[in-house]
Amino acid sequence: MIKRGSHPHPNPLPQAGEGAKDSPQSSAGGGAKDSPLPHRGRGQGEGVSLAQALFAPRAVALVGASGDAAKNTARPQRFLKKHGYAGRVLPINSTRREVLGERAWTSLAEAPGEIDHVFVMAPGEAVERALEDCGKRGVPVMSIFTDGFADAGEAGMARQARLVARARELGVRILGPNSMGVVDVPGRLALTVNAVLEMDALPAGAASIVSQSGTMLGTLLSRGAARELGFAKLVSLGNEADIGAGELVELLAEDADTRVILLFLETVRDAERLAGAARRAHAAGKPVVAYKLGRSQLGIALARSHTGALAGADAALDAYFRDCGIVRVDMLETLLEIAPLVAGRKPPDLERAARVAVVTTTGGGAASVVDRLGMFGIETVAPDSKSPIVDLTMAATAEQYTAVLDDLFASAQCDGVLAVVGSSAQFHPQLAVEPIVRSKKSAKPLAVFLTPHAERSLALLAGRGIPAFRTPEACADALASYFAWRSPRTRTAAAPAEWPRDLPRQGRLDEAQALKLLASLGIPVAEHAIAQPPGYAHAVPYPVATKALCAEILHKTEAGAVCLGIADRTEFDRKVRAMLERVATARGVLVQKMESGLAEAIVGYRDDPVVGPIVLVGAGGTLAEIYKDYALRLGEEEAEEMIARVKGLATLRGYRGLPRGDARALAHAVAALSRLALIAGRPVAEAEANPVIVKDKGAVAVDALVVMKEKHDNARHSRESGNPESA
Amino acid sequence: MIKRGSHPHPNPLPQAGEGAKDSPQSSAGGGAKDSPLPHRGRGQGEGVSLAQALFAPRAVALVGASGDAAKNTARPQRFLKKHGYAGRVLPINSTRREVLGERAWTSLAEAPGEIDHVFVMAPGEAVERALEDCGKRGVPVMSIFTDGFADAGEAGMARQARLVARARELGVRILGPNSMGVVDVPGRLALTVNAVLEMDALPAGAASIVSQSGTMLGTLLSRGAARELGFAKLVSLGNEADIGAGELVELLAEDADTRVILLFLETVRDAERLAGAARRAHAAGKPVVAYKLGRSQLGIALARSHTGALAGADAALDAYFRDCGIVRVDMLETLLEIAPLVAGRKPPDLERAARVAVVTTTGGGAASVVDRLGMFGIETVAPDSKSPIVDLTMAATAEQYTAVLDDLFASAQCDGVLAVVGSSAQFHPQLAVEPIVRSKKSAKPLAVFLTPHAERSLALLAGRGIPAFRTPEACADALASYFAWRSPRTRTAAAPAEWPRDLPRQGRLDEAQALKLLASLGIPVAEHAIAQPPGYAHAVPYPVATKALCAEILHKTEAGAVCLGIADRTEFDRKVRAMLERVATARGVLVQKMESGLAEAIVGYRDDPVVGPIVLVGAGGTLAEIYKDYALRLGEEEAEEMIARVKGLATLRGYRGLPRGDARALAHAVAALSRLALIAGRPVAEAEANPVIVKDKGAVAVDALVVMKEKHDNARHSRESGNPESA
Repeated sequence: MIKRGSHPHPNPLPQAGEGAKDSPQSSAGGGAKDSPLPHRGRGQGEGVSLAQALFAPRAVALVGASGDAAKNTARPQRFLKKHGYAGRVLPINSTRREVLGERAWTSLAEAPGEIDHVFVMAPGEAVERALEDCGKRGVPVMSIFTDGFADAGEAGMARQARLVARARELGVRILGPNSMGVVDVPGRLALTVNAVLEMDALPAGAASIVSQSGTMLGTLLSRGAARELGFAKLVSLGNEADIGAGELVELLAEDADTRVILLFLETVRDAERLAGAARRAHAAGKPVVAYKLGRSQLGIALARSHTGALAGADAALDAYFRDCGIVRVDMLETLLEIAPLVAGRKPPDLERAARVAVVTTTGGGAASVVDRLGMFGIETVAPDSKSPIVDLTMAATAEQYTAVLDDLFASAQCDGVLAVVGSSAQFHPQLAVEPIVRSKKSAKPLAVFLTPHAERSLALLAGRGIPAFRTPEACADALASYFAWRSPRTRTAAAPAEWPRDLPRQGRLDEAQALKLLASLGIPVAEHAIAQPPGYAHAVPYPVATKALCAEILHKTEAGAVCLGIADRTEFDRKVRAMLERVATARGVLVQKMESGLAEAIVGYRDDPVVGPIVLVGAGGTLAEIYKDYALRLGEEEAEEMIARVKGLATLRGYRGLPRGDARALAHAVAALSRLALIAGRPVAEAEANPVIVKDKGAVAVDALVVMKEKHDNARHSRESGNPESA
Repeated sequence: MIKRGSHPHPNPLPQAGEGAKDSPQSSAGGGAKDSPLPHRGRGQGEGVSLAQALFAPRAVALVGASGDAAKNTARPQRFLKKHGYAGRVLPINSTRREVLGERAWTSLAEAPGEIDHVFVMAPGEAVERALEDCGKRGVPVMSIFTDGFADAGEAGMARQARLVARARELGVRILGPNSMGVVDVPGRLALTVNAVLEMDALPAGAASIVSQSGTMLGTLLSRGAARELGFAKLVSLGNEADIGAGELVELLAEDADTRVILLFLETVRDAERLAGAARRAHAAGKPVVAYKLGRSQLGIALARSHTGALAGADAALDAYFRDCGIVRVDMLETLLEIAPLVAGRKPPDLERAARVAVVTTTGGGAASVVDRLGMFGIETVAPDSKSPIVDLTMAATAEQYTAVLDDLFASAQCDGVLAVVGSSAQFHPQLAVEPIVRSKKSAKPLAVFLTPHAERSLALLAGRGIPAFRTPEACADALASYFAWRSPRTRTAAAPAEWPRDLPRQGRLDEAQALKLLASLGIPVAEHAIAQPPGYAHAVPYPVATKALCAEILHKTEAGAVCLGIADRTEFDRKVRAMLERVATARGVLVQKMESGLAEAIVGYRDDPVVGPIVLVGAGGTLAEIYKDYALRLGEEEAEEMIARVKGLATLRGYRGLPRGDARALAHAVAALSRLALIAGRPVAEAEANPVIVKDKGAVAVDALVVMKEKHDNARHSRESGNPESA
C-alpha cells in the first residue's frame, strides 16, 4: 500500500542534517568541482542532501506513470509498492486522476506536499516541463528515464545541453537522461523501470553498483539475488548529463551501507573527478572495482604517432584505474563475485609474483583454475608438500579439511588460498563446504570455486561473506585482479618544467627542435648538427646518419628521408643529394653521430584526452606497435618496473647471457619525458623518442617526434557527449 | 527395485549382434590398432560388443560395494536403483551376504549368471583378484575406481603395467583404473561413484562426454541438468590404462544416441587413435569439442632449440586439434553450452574474418559480447543499418523481433547471428525469448546470451536446441571456437623424401651438414663453402659471414662463433683467427655470402612426442620466441595462411608502404622442411632455419640447425603413464 501524507524520512543516512560543508553535494554544482552552490528554488528541498534526495527521498513523483500495469512506465509505481517503500508516491499522468488504483495528478505542479525526487518517464517536451516544475517547487533531484538526448545524435546533444544549463539555473540536479533509475535496498526504494525488480525480495548486502548500462545493473542485481549476493545501492547513470560516476562514487564513499563500490563502465566521462572519488573511497576503506567495455577498440582518434596508436583508450584507462587504486576485472561475473574478496581488504601492493595455496577435493577442478592462474603469472605453492596442490580426496574428514585451511592461513609461504570443491558441493555440503565456513577468518584472501551446479552452497558461502565462484575463469580473474590491485599512487609535487625559449609553442616541431626539447628535459640525445645549403658543412664525426628536416614527415624511414651509416664525406655528399631529391620540402639536413648499444627502446608521452598525461616505454622500432609490447603509466615513479614488463627489452636483463643494459638510464629518460606534463599549459599532445639506444652505460635518444596540441584541443577536458550504447 | 534373474538387454545399441567386423571393438585389442582380437575367456561374453558391455550391460557386479549408504562405495548400487537401471545388480562384499537390503556375494567367483560389466571399488589386491575372476567368467569389461596405479608413482605404474598385461592375456578390457565410472542416460545406467548422481532425474540429450577427470564429468552433468542441457553417455577415463579417449570417440561416433562428443582433457595419451576417431566422427556428422587443461605450461621436456621452446605441448595440441577437425574451447562452461551450436553442423571452414550480426534489447549486454568477439577478430555487421548492432528497445514487439531474426538468417552479409536479451529474459520471456524460439530454423548458427539470471529461459531455449549462454565470455568463446573450426585436413600421399647419402643418420649435424640437408629438401640456402686450416681458402665472394663449424654449439652468436659482414680477405684473416681462439673445438670455418632482404623468418620442424611431426613459421631472430609470434601446423598445406598469421612478418605484406616480400617462396620453404616427416624412420627430432631471408623475389636460408633423435626416442609413441591430476 502506498501511504499518503507527510512522513518522516524513511531511511535517513548518517550524514543527514548538518555538516553539509564537507559533504559531496556542497562541492557538486553540476559535475564541476569548483562551481558555486546551486540555487535552490523556493527552498523546499533545503537541508536535504543529494544522497538523501537520490536514495532516501521522503516523497517521489512519477511523471508519465502508466495505468497499464504491463507497460514499463508502470513499473516504478508497482516496484515501489512491491518492495515496501515507506515514503509517499505521486503518480503524474496528464490524462488520468487515478493510476493503478492510486490517486494521480495531471501535472507535477498540482501534486501536493514536499517532493524530494522526481522520476520522469514521459516523452518529449514533458521532460522540460517537469524540470520547470521541479525548479519552481525546489525539488532537489530529477531522474530522467526518457531518451532522445545525447543518446540521439547532434540535435539530442544540443537538447541535453540546454536541459542541463536550465537545471543549473534552477538548482535542480539531474540523473540521466536515459537512466533506468535508482534502487536502495535497505531503504526499500525501487525507483526503476528495470524488469528485474519483479523479483520478490531484494537481497541486502554491502556492495553498491554504479552502472552506465541500466540493463546490466539489473543483470547484476538479478544474478546476485539468485545466490544471496546482496546490494546496498544501485544507480543507472544514463547519459551522465549532470550527475556522473565520479560524484556517485563520492556519495557512496560516505554511505554507511556501502563497503564495496562496483562500476559497470562503457566509457569514462569524468576521469579527474572519478579518480579523486576513488582515492576518497580508498581512504574510507572501500574498494572500487570496475568492469569496462571497449577493450577491443583502439579509440576514435586517429593515431598520429606510435605512442598514439599504442596508447589506445583502453590501455590508457588500464593505467588510469591502476593509478587511482581501482581494481579492474576482465569478466562480467567477476564484478559480482569479487565483492566479498575485496570487502574490508586493502590493496596487497605486491612487488613480486603472487603465491596461492590450493586445497581441493578434485584434481581436475583445481587444475581448471590453476591453469588460468598460471596464464596470469600467479604461482601455486603448497607449504610442506611436494605437490603444488593439496588434494584431499573424498575420504578426508571435515575436520581435516578445516585444519588444512587454517594451516594455510597461518603460513607465511602463500599470499592467498584457493579452495576447490567437487561434486559434494551440490548434495553434501557438510563434506567440504561447511568445513570452509568453519575455518578461521583470515586477513589472507580465500577464494572458493565450486565445480557442480551448487546454488545452495554458493548462497551458504555468500551469507558468510566468503568469496565463492561459479566458474574457474572468473575465480582466476578475481584472484589475478586482486593481486594486481595497487594503492592509489601518491602524487609528489614536482618542480615545473620550462619550455625552451627558442622553440615555438604551436604548430609542428621538426626533429632538431624535438631533440632540443628532449635535451632540455634532461634526456641525453645523440650528438648532432644541422647542415645547411649550399655546402652542407658539419663537424659531427663519421660515421653519421642524416635526416631531412621536415616536420610534415612522421615516418621518415619509409619516406626515404633517412640515411644511416654514412662512412665519410664523399658518401655524405652523394647520399644527401639523393635524399634531398626525394624530400623537396626539407629545410636542412640533420647530421647525427651513429650510435649503437645493447637494445632499442621507445619512450613516449601522451596527453590523453580522457585520462591526461601518460608515459610509455616499449621495445624500440616497430616492435612495440606490432606486438603491443609496452608498459604505460600515468606517472613515471614506476619506470623501472615498467621496463621490467616489456618482453622485447629482455636484452637489458641479460637475455641468453648477453651483457646487461643500463635500465636505470632508460628509466631516467622515461621520468624526464614525463616532465612534459609539468610545463605550464601542457602544450605537447604527444612526444616520443624512438629509438632510445640503451648501452651498457647510459641511454641516448636518436629519433624524436613531438606533436603540439592544436588549439581546439584545449577543450579536451570538457564533458563528453553521451554514448549511444548506454542502455 | 533391483531385479534379479536373467533379463533381455535393457538398452540394445543399434550395432548389436552382427556386423562386428567393422565395429570399433574388432580392432581394439588393448588400445593398439593392429593387435589381434582379444582372447575371450570361456566365451560367456561372446557376441557382446565393447559398447554394449560398457553402456548397456545385462548385469553389473559391484566389487567392494559398501553397506554404509553414506560411503561413496555404496553409491553405484544406490544410483543404479535410483535411476531405474533394468539389468541385474550384484553387490560383492567380502564380509557380507546382504548390502543395502539386497542379496550380496563375498566374491565375484560365486556371483550367479552372466555378467557383462564389473565395477571394482575394493582396495589393494582385490583388483587383481577381480581381474582373474573376470577372466575365468569371460566378463568382457571391468571398470576400476580403485586408485594406486599410474596415479601413484613408479610402483603404481609398474602395477598398472602388470594389470594391463594380464588383462590382455585374459581378454578383459579395462576402463580406468581411477575411473569414476560410466553413465548412460537413455539406458538409465548410473554406474558411478560421482555424488552428482544424487540428482533426481538425469536429463537426456544428444551430447556425450568423455572426461579424464571424473569430478568434472559430474560437474558438466550437474550444470547441464540445472538448465535442461541433457546427455547421452558420460565416461570417466581415469588412467586410460587400456580403453582410451580415442577408442571411446570411435564408439560414440557409431552411437545412435550421440550427436555431439565433448572431451574434458588434461593430456592426450593416444594422439593417433584419437585423431582417427575424430575423423570418423566428422564423417558421421558428429562434431567433437575439446576443453584441454595445461595451457600455461610449456611441457616437461627442456627445449633444445627455438622450435622446441616454441612448440610447447599446448601449441602443438592446438595444431593437432585443428588438424583432425576437433573444436577447441577456452572456457569450461563453453564445453557445455557449445553443444547445440555445433550439433548437426559442419565446420564453417571460413577463410576470412567471421561476420556476426547482433540483435539485442540491451546495448550494454550486446557490447559485453561484441567487445570480446572483437578481441578474437570477429567482425560485427548489421545488414541495412548504420549501427553495427540492431538495438530493439523494450518497445519492440515480439513480431518485430522474430522478423528481424528471420531477415538476418536470410542475409548473405553475416555468417552467424547473436541475439542478446536483457532483463525481460527473467520474468517476461514472451517479449524476446519466445520470439527467438519462434524464428525460422536456419543453417546459420544462432547464439543467444541472456543477461539476467534466467534459468527458465535458458531451459526453454535448451529444450528447442537453441544455443544459449549464461555469460558474455562463454558466448564469445563459443562463437570464436565455432568459426575457427576446420574440417579435418586431408592427408595427401606424398613421395618419400631421401636422406642425403653422405650425412650421418645419428648424432649431431654441424651447420654445413644441416644446410646440406635443407638443400636436399629443396630449400634454397645461402652460397657457402668450408674453409679449412691452415690457409682457410675459399671462393665465396665478399662480403661474407663466417661461422665456426661445431655441432655442440647451438646458439653460435652468443658463443662468439659468428662474424658478419666481412668485407675482404684481410678482415677475414683477422676475424677468423680471433673466432677460432674463442671456439677451440671447431672442425673448420663455414664461409657464407652475406644475404639481405625484406624480412627474416624462422621455419621449423619438430617430431613432437605427443602429436608427431609439426611445422612452424614465425618472425625471425628471437622475435618468435620472445613474442610467441609463430604459426604451427601438422601439415604444410596451409603455409601461406600460416605466414599471414605471423604479426612480425607484416613487412612481407607491405607494412607501412614497404615493398612486399615473396611470401610464396617462404611458404615453399615451409613445405620443403615438412618433408622431413617423409624420410624413412623419421630420424630428425628437430630442424630449423633461422633466419630465412625473404626477398622481393625468393627466400634463402642462412642459418640451419638439425637435431637428430636419440635412440631412446624411438619409444616415443608408446603409451604414456597416468597423470596424477586425473581425479
